[in-house]
Amino acid sequence: MNASDKRKLPIGVFDSGLGGLTALSELHNLMPNEDIIYFGDSARIPYGTKSPSVIRKFALQDARFLLSKNVKAILVACGTVSSNCIEDVRRETGLPVVGVIDSAAKDASEVAKKGNKRVTVLGTSATIKSKAFENALKNEGIDDIIPVACPMFVPLVEYWNPSIDDEATNAVVSEYLSEVARLKPDSAILGCTHYPLLFDVIQKHLPNTKLISSGESAANALKEELVVLGLDNNSGGRVEYFTSDDASLFASNAKKFLKGGLDGNISHIDIEKY
Amino acid sequence: MNASDKRKLPIGVFDSGLGGLTALSELHNLMPNEDIIYFGDSARIPYGTKSPSVIRKFALQDARFLLSKNVKAILVACGTVSSNCIEDVRRETGLPVVGVIDSAAKDASEVAKKGNKRVTVLGTSATIKSKAFENALKNEGIDDIIPVACPMFVPLVEYWNPSIDDEATNAVVSEYLSEVARLKPDSAILGCTHYPLLFDVIQKHLPNTKLISSGESAANALKEELVVLGLDNNSGGRVEYFTSDDASLFASNAKKFLKGGLDGNISHIDIEKY
Repeated sequence: MNASDKRKLPIGVFDSGLGGLTALSELHNLMPNEDIIYFGDSARIPYGTKSPSVIRKFALQDARFLLSKNVKAILVACGTVSSNCIEDVRRETGLPVVGVIDSAAKDASEVAKKGNKRVTVLGTSATIKSKAFENALKNEGIDDIIPVACPMFVPLVEYWNPSIDDEATNAVVSEYLSEVARLKPDSAILGCTHYPLLFDVIQKHLPNTKLISSGESAANALKEELVVLGLDNNSGGRVEYFTSDDASLFASNAKKFLKGGLDGNISHIDIEKY
Repeated sequence: MNASDKRKLPIGVFDSGLGGLTALSELHNLMPNEDIIYFGDSARIPYGTKSPSVIRKFALQDARFLLSKNVKAILVACGTVSSNCIEDVRRETGLPVVGVIDSAAKDASEVAKKGNKRVTVLGTSATIKSKAFENALKNEGIDDIIPVACPMFVPLVEYWNPSIDDEATNAVVSEYLSEVARLKPDSAILGCTHYPLLFDVIQKHLPNTKLISSGESAANALKEELVVLGLDNNSGGRVEYFTSDDASLFASNAKKFLKGGLDGNISHIDIEKY
């Protein structure tokens, strides 16, 4: 395949469920002429509570499915996979693979270096426990880090209607962030692709802090990498969706994550076969 | 094997994860001299979102694992399996098998028949959608049924500290139950093995309603059946735990469901082999 054919191949994006649609959305806005294949492993969500060996097995199956669709690069929109086994995904696929950890750490540290060099990391319990963002921030020269596990944020997005004035939402966000707010971190990594849907209410509770969405950072990083490699496309723009669970359920739930709903075909696949 | 040897065999309990530990706990309290084998399929949780054929395959694997441990009877603590394929589990094992649907429906309808014959069913979205409790209640002669999907209850138990005075907990429970409370149902089925951990706060919001825990109903039904069959034991009491995911993760998460934590050995098994 020559370079011009290769750049026309789609970009693959995967996540344990629908949260990665926020990263897809950022990528699609940034690179509107790229074809994108999205896989959401809704039948096996969540990954964060599973053991490292199960997470690795699932991640490689997800990557092999995208490989079967001839993708030219992969955006791993799942924080759990990005922090646990992104090197395994790189080795398995031999493709450019961008996760949601390093790029967000870079963006958050750039902001912090102009201030007090203090960063807070908000994530699922598994992500915080992995110290993945902490290690990436330390690599960027940031040592004053406040990690906060926010395990109720995903259920709030998935099962609730988390508006900025909602009582339950504010009680949960306040419990996690009131202490942190007093420490006035320069930047906060939203270390889970669900969290952009809580952006306003998180900003309300962290008024002096720049919020960094990990999906947006990853989309920016992938764009840079594709341009450097001469792999960016200017003749596509189609998005196609796959899920391990029911396709119509996926389409209905996706409305929460994509303004205007899905703009492409959605199909069910049996991920256990990959 | 003679009858006296047979009654000394353990009881098997399985669930898609840890929730079934509340049913195990009820069974252990009711029959403290029974040996019990618990299997939690944490690596493949949740079952509720999977297709009927996958659920059946998983359920039969779970049952065959328990058979390999020489159990004399099985308590299916998983609502999804109880409603989808409990007959398959009975056929596969040839043992007394009790699920969490029919026994809870019987207990709830007995209460309701002494009142206004109105029952509410609280469950996960998948359980409510399956109408399993509704159908079982109709078989018991109850037609005035209020089904309520409470998808935030499991996250509250898993990730929060849902005390009776907690602001977020009360906001969530009130949202789901304030309308129902006005209808004064005679009984409410707690149709998910996680919900007994919200017993007090649910009771606070449904003050005029008798709460029926599906795990407790199943434990009572199994005890009755074992006594009738002459299979109850008076010389055991050991509990042993198995999980398809990481054993130490299971032990740590189990503390939430079992007061005092695990009181027996916990081992990992590869459930795909059964």
